[in-house]
Amino acid sequence: MTPQYLTGDKDGIEEFLSRFDVFLFDCDGVLWSGNHLFPNVPETIHMLKAKGKQLVFVTNNSTKSRADYKKKFDKLGIPAEVDEVFGSSYSAAVYIARILKLPAGKNKVFVLGESGIEQELEAEGVPYCGGTDPAFRRDIEDEDFVKIADGSALDPEVGLVLSGLDFHSNYLKMATAFQYLQRGAVYLATNIDSTLPMANSFFPGAGSSGAGLAKAIGREPLSLGKPSQAMMDAVEGKFQFDRSRTCMIGDRLNTDIQFGIDGKLGGTLAVLTGVSKKEDFLAEGAPTVPLAYVNTLGDLLLGS
Amino acid sequence: MTPQYLTGDKDGIEEFLSRFDVFLFDCDGVLWSGNHLFPNVPETIHMLKAKGKQLVFVTNNSTKSRADYKKKFDKLGIPAEVDEVFGSSYSAAVYIARILKLPAGKNKVFVLGESGIEQELEAEGVPYCGGTDPAFRRDIEDEDFVKIADGSALDPEVGLVLSGLDFHSNYLKMATAFQYLQRGAVYLATNIDSTLPMANSFFPGAGSSGAGLAKAIGREPLSLGKPSQAMMDAVEGKFQFDRSRTCMIGDRLNTDIQFGIDGKLGGTLAVLTGVSKKEDFLAEGAPTVPLAYVNTLGDLLLGS
Repeated sequence: MTPQYLTGDKDGIEEFLSRFDVFLFDCDGVLWSGNHLFPNVPETIHMLKAKGKQLVFVTNNSTKSRADYKKKFDKLGIPAEVDEVFGSSYSAAVYIARILKLPAGKNKVFVLGESGIEQELEAEGVPYCGGTDPAFRRDIEDEDFVKIADGSALDPEVGLVLSGLDFHSNYLKMATAFQYLQRGAVYLATNIDSTLPMANSFFPGAGSSGAGLAKAIGREPLSLGKPSQAMMDAVEGKFQFDRSRTCMIGDRLNTDIQFGIDGKLGGTLAVLTGVSKKEDFLAEGAPTVPLAYVNTLGDLLLGS
Repeated sequence: MTPQYLTGDKDGIEEFLSRFDVFLFDCDGVLWSGNHLFPNVPETIHMLKAKGKQLVFVTNNSTKSRADYKKKFDKLGIPAEVDEVFGSSYSAAVYIARILKLPAGKNKVFVLGESGIEQELEAEGVPYCGGTDPAFRRDIEDEDFVKIADGSALDPEVGLVLSGLDFHSNYLKMATAFQYLQRGAVYLATNIDSTLPMANSFFPGAGSSGAGLAKAIGREPLSLGKPSQAMMDAVEGKFQFDRSRTCMIGDRLNTDIQFGIDGKLGGTLAVLTGVSKKEDFLAEGAPTVPLAYVNTLGDLLLGS
């Protein structure tokens, strides 16, 4: 079905908004790009809240904790609360602590990623190592190969490897994580986005900084980010919404929009300020098609 | 067809050896594991040379140049010459210099890898950057994102990205290489082995240290290492052998043995001192089956 184009269509927007009580928002590419806020975003968020809509900001960026996100919302003047943010690091921490429940003595997480992951694990009481530990921010040396291989460099309590976006990825961490996986550790990822939109270009995303490990072990991690339904289940567990009255808003067809479709939400709305272009879903046989689309999120203001 | 088991079969070995004039050898897992020489290897190499066989050591390890390999052969007492060594770094350098022939002004190679690659590029007169340059051995910083994205941190002469095993891989190099690829650079790899046998265990190989880049750009590089026939063509270009009288000896079914089969060589011989186990090729429906196999390379000595 051809998606409905809502930009400039006041009646269409009003009718569309009336069909939903809950809006799940992607952030990067929808609200902002890096530190650049898109036009009328705070006003649009305010308008939706004034209409009594529940908003959840669902983001795959694992480098930031919910608290970090709250700071960013404040800085950009977007009205949002910590509890309205649901990041992939939080999603992973919740999954590990409340669903996976690894046995004591084998429940430590080896982290490939930044402090956002560590903060969320800490908040959920999950022990971890690796991550931003300076001991792992160095080149691998000859004796490391021996100590990793014979296990003497390993923590016997590690039972899980969690891979996220890591701006400090290196061979030492990858080799250590690979050894844990070879010894049977559970393999999770906060998300597996291949790219990260930044500075008006694309940089390697979490799926790329973690791709070496996946290639070495020969399988993909279970992702706790969009479009994985493990994330939708976690969001629903916390917010208990009616899926048929919920709409996912995002810029990426293969993560955001697919996330909403797979989750059988009442609707999906694509914005054209990020990764995917309208040609991507208007083309015949496009694999992922949103219910509607706007040029920019701020276009919804017309429906206020 | 069930492969012939030659260990302990003197007549079988003699008949097998008589069918070939040229033997292509994999090194790691066949001659040695790390710094551990397998039994009777120097004697076996000597025996084959005494029979007038031509030997070529074909290795995917891109961290070492041919000169580096010669030193290793000398140290372990294996009789071999620099000209008998054909590494994936050399293979890539030959391909770039003699086959690809990029236009002047756009012929510089951005290297993801160690000094072995740099040495072979230098020997073939190919300009390069990246690689072991200390300027790239650091964390990425905020301003790097801007400068990589707008191109001011890029070398306008780079027309090719060459990815190999990199013990010093980091996000800065990956992001820079990714930007070159987004701008149309040719994408090659010395090899794409997922793992590297070391210290009696497995570590991430060239295919893993380069997997992030492949994931980000969404396609695989052209590999100049086994089992890519680009490497066989380069070997043949240098040594001009009769393929029907040539045998590939290796420990990995999906690289070494496949390399020989795809190259339509007269035969392939698997050794069981490395990655692949005999169950891997004796199983019904095994995708890659050698013509014959021995427990260790030294078992061939019985045929002297």
